[in-house]
Amino acid sequence: MIILKASFDDGQPIFLQIAEMIEDDILNQTYEIDDQVMSTTAFAKTFQINPATAVKGINLLVEEGILFKRRGLGMFVAEGAVEKILKKRRDSFYSQYVQKMLNEAKKINLTTDDVIKLIKNEKRSE
Amino acid sequence: MIILKASFDDGQPIFLQIAEMIEDDILNQTYEIDDQVMSTTAFAKTFQINPATAVKGINLLVEEGILFKRRGLGMFVAEGAVEKILKKRRDSFYSQYVQKMLNEAKKINLTTDDVIKLIKNEKRSE
Repeated sequence: MIILKASFDDGQPIFLQIAEMIEDDILNQTYEIDDQVMSTTAFAKTFQINPATAVKGINLLVEEGILFKRRGLGMFVAEGAVEKILKKRRDSFYSQYVQKMLNEAKKINLTTDDVIKLIKNEKRSE
Repeated sequence: MIILKASFDDGQPIFLQIAEMIEDDILNQTYEIDDQVMSTTAFAKTFQINPATAVKGINLLVEEGILFKRRGLGMFVAEGAVEKILKKRRDSFYSQYVQKMLNEAKKINLTTDDVIKLIKNEKRSE
């Protein structure tokens, strides 16, 4: 359990983090269309998680048409996967990141302009 | 367990959310200096959590000098609590909110300007 906590962000359930990890690798072209992704067994071993959790994360992506199963072979990246991931994550970007950040800003008395200044400072230092 | 998941954000450990809830109530002046906060037993009952978890959350705030204990009476809001909370949460605001948001933006090909536009739209609709 300690290893698990060390390798994963506390931010969300492990199976969602597994799904997101695969999505990230599709977005950054580690995996391309028709590439085979790591098996659930390999996932479970590598990250020392319950195999059922790995299965749950991968099945989520199958349901969303991001991965597909080749019987007896494993899971592969579906055509249109990048577009589907981008659409899903852009749709939730506002509520998942912007809104949460602005809520916290309000609580600690930072104005929207203060927040924008912080973001622009990051931009300059890139 | 289902009730617990419904009343808490999946975002972080329950004891931290307990601590944050109390901090929020201090920031928004539900609790003022020297006010008594809900007992750990009441917390545990209200949110149907393990009393040990409530104790852990409240003890964190005692360690940070935000709450203090009056023996036999309970926990109270310490002087300087607001300033301590603001300092702590402003210090972590960048890494906890801004940085995470910008990382996700990069993954889904949103520029810093796109993000700023999203934030400004929110501002207009306030």
